[in-house]
Amino acid sequence: KINADRLWDSLMEMAKIGPGVAGGNNRQTLTDEDSEGRKLFQKWCEEAGLEMSVDEMGSMFATRAGTDPDALPVYVGSHLDTQPTGGKYDGVLGVLGGLEIIRSMNDLGIKTKHPIVVTNWTNEEGTRFAPAMLASGVFAGVHERDWAYDRTDAEGKRFGDELERIGWKGDEPVGQRKMKAFFELHIEQGPILEDELVDIGVVTHGQGLWWLQVTLTGKESHTGSTPMPKRRNAGLGMARVTELVHEVAMDHQPNAVGAIGHVEVYPNSRNVIPGKTVFTVDIRSPDEKTLNKMRAKIEAGIETICDALDIKFEIEPVGHFAPVTFDEGCVKAIRDAAERLGYSHRDIVSGAGHDACWINQVAPTAMVMCPCVDGLSHNEAEEITKEWAQAGADVLFHAVVETAEI
Amino acid sequence: KINADRLWDSLMEMAKIGPGVAGGNNRQTLTDEDSEGRKLFQKWCEEAGLEMSVDEMGSMFATRAGTDPDALPVYVGSHLDTQPTGGKYDGVLGVLGGLEIIRSMNDLGIKTKHPIVVTNWTNEEGTRFAPAMLASGVFAGVHERDWAYDRTDAEGKRFGDELERIGWKGDEPVGQRKMKAFFELHIEQGPILEDELVDIGVVTHGQGLWWLQVTLTGKESHTGSTPMPKRRNAGLGMARVTELVHEVAMDHQPNAVGAIGHVEVYPNSRNVIPGKTVFTVDIRSPDEKTLNKMRAKIEAGIETICDALDIKFEIEPVGHFAPVTFDEGCVKAIRDAAERLGYSHRDIVSGAGHDACWINQVAPTAMVMCPCVDGLSHNEAEEITKEWAQAGADVLFHAVVETAEI
Ligand SMILES: NC(=O)NCCC(=O)O
Ligand SMILES: NC(=O)NCCC(=O)O
Repeated sequence: KINADRLWDSLMEMAKIGPGVAGGNNRQTLTDEDSEGRKLFQKWCEEAGLEMSVDEMGSMFATRAGTDPDALPVYVGSHLDTQPTGGKYDGVLGVLGGLEIIRSMNDLGIKTKHPIVVTNWTNEEGTRFAPAMLASGVFAGVHERDWAYDRTDAEGKRFGDELERIGWKGDEPVGQRKMKAFFELHIEQGPILEDELVDIGVVTHGQGLWWLQVTLTGKESHTGSTPMPKRRNAGLGMARVTELVHEVAMDHQPNAVGAIGHVEVYPNSRNVIPGKTVFTVDIRSPDEKTLNKMRAKIEAGIETICDALDIKFEIEPVGHFAPVTFDEGCVKAIRDAAERLGYSHRDIVSGAGHDACWINQVAPTAMVMCPCVDGLSHNEAEEITKEWAQAGADVLFHAVVETAEI
Repeated sequence: KINADRLWDSLMEMAKIGPGVAGGNNRQTLTDEDSEGRKLFQKWCEEAGLEMSVDEMGSMFATRAGTDPDALPVYVGSHLDTQPTGGKYDGVLGVLGGLEIIRSMNDLGIKTKHPIVVTNWTNEEGTRFAPAMLASGVFAGVHERDWAYDRTDAEGKRFGDELERIGWKGDEPVGQRKMKAFFELHIEQGPILEDELVDIGVVTHGQGLWWLQVTLTGKESHTGSTPMPKRRNAGLGMARVTELVHEVAMDHQPNAVGAIGHVEVYPNSRNVIPGKTVFTVDIRSPDEKTLNKMRAKIEAGIETICDALDIKFEIEPVGHFAPVTFDEGCVKAIRDAAERLGYSHRDIVSGAGHDACWINQVAPTAMVMCPCVDGLSHNEAEEITKEWAQAGADVLFHAVVETAEI
């Protein structure tokens, strides 16, 4: 078993960097706080005897050598970036859980045939720069590196420039590493495990997603003196699309979710009918057909809504991944570890996207989940217990060490 | 008649300060650009022989002496502040039209018994600091000066501090001036005059307004992993209120308008269900009963919407004026002037609020309107012709000089 106190202390130490306003964190990708978090992780890795390498996307790889110089490494990790009002565990548990495995192996004098690499993937959250899981996507060959560099944040700053500015643009080419396997520990971010009092989620599948960035163009004009029939209200259009997305998700229960979380209104003045709105539809389903049907219904619905309001629309997909089926062998390694350790477990589908979803395309991959209080995530009040963290990291420990072969 | 070329040149000169991004202006109240615009107006006033005084709300009063030292002054003016994406004429035409009257009187050697005062009222637009028509409201005794100082912008900056910062906090106590009359020239900001090919709108009434700032509090959580039935989506609530406001306005046609122009979404991240939204409902009607009925329907509707979504709400009125009936004598002076000058005219109700609406409570007041292209205002593309400006300023000229008595 890993040392849960040490893991917990590290989680709390990392949470001091980029504190939020309500007990959580704001350590968004490629900010100064992200850079500081990375430095702390690097220091801990070096103290644990690991060798750090950084690739051109800023992803960090900390290696513990294996006994066989030719054996492919086993990878473990997640991400250190957070939402603007994020929790202390989303991503961080997976990175520091990986580090804790190494520390525990050092304590116990365990050597493995295969090297073990602890990884921090850049920009998993996708808040500042869409899409989410950007660096792992480039690693898996889904996106081009230079395309990723050109992603911009709300202020128009480029990903590539910001990566350079914070000093974490490495020189290792992206995606050349070969992996024996990749394991990611993550909090569930949903309510199932806690509701069913289960210690461990063995993640067999992940939902697919579309992010559709919609731009509605009406005509900004005076709210008081523009007659109702003369209006071309892009804000009313956005409201109707928000309702539509909700309805489409409700029509496909229980296999779908959908909402709009990101919104910009121009010129955003109390007495001006919005002339332009930009917002991102987020729809998901574990079933690809359902996902694409939802997208088609929403796109058709947007056209109908805009025709009725005499406004123009543009729809740009800014994020997508298909539903994922994780590697059978890796999934079994996790299920067996939970079983061996005596933790209760169940198979589960990940509602969120994860770096593991992309890495699954280039290496055998699976995920371990632990419960989180009230299923709450992407909220500063996100919470887990030390016991849940222990169970998750223990299972990760056993699955990784078994795969890396003593 | 006034000198339309000179008026036009001054309008274009003022429009160089705080240029917008699409041919209009961004000279929001109490910004550096506002300060610069005031300086230019002050310079012009001094060149025209006027004496400038500034009150504690930053409102500017430029006086041309009358022949009778005891006669009450006739006031004329509007505002120089603009929307974030505003036009070149909204407000500015009324201030510089007032100045042009003085310049024309100087040219023609006209003396009046009553002094004439050209006025620039602070913060008419209400974008940066709600409510609109703030300084004229304090002047009319509707608001307390210190309450006005405490209004804050989106960044939490106080009106009083910003007024001091830009150097335009005068020391004249607010509201002590007595007026024989107040006249305001303004573009219509609606389509009626242009559609009917009428030169002059004689404004007999103004619509009433409520601004209701609504705060919805749900629970921010992960868009992918939070099951639909567990959501408390403050963004969906806002969408439903947006639709409700539209429906309530449509139910009271043709005597009502309504929309939501100002919106804030927290944390505004693509994959986070909004936990909080803040937005301002703007509803108006020329009929007070209708206006209050609309407010009641919207407040009841918000409660129903929030109950269904398990979210909390707060409603705070942040702007209000009752429908206005302008002074019969002043209205007649405008109608007679249009008639005498041979301009086509019609009586009209102002859809927007104006400083004249508050001043009407403390002095005989009326307004002149001229058409604007396509009824468009609160848009950088706002446009008028030099001929329309000429007609409006001519009518203002005659009404003011007649009231001030040669
Ligand atoms: N795990 C997680 O929150 N990932 C961010 C990408 C997503 O929205 O699913
Ligand atoms: N005239 C004008 O645009 N005034 C601003 C206040 C309002 O919204 O009516």
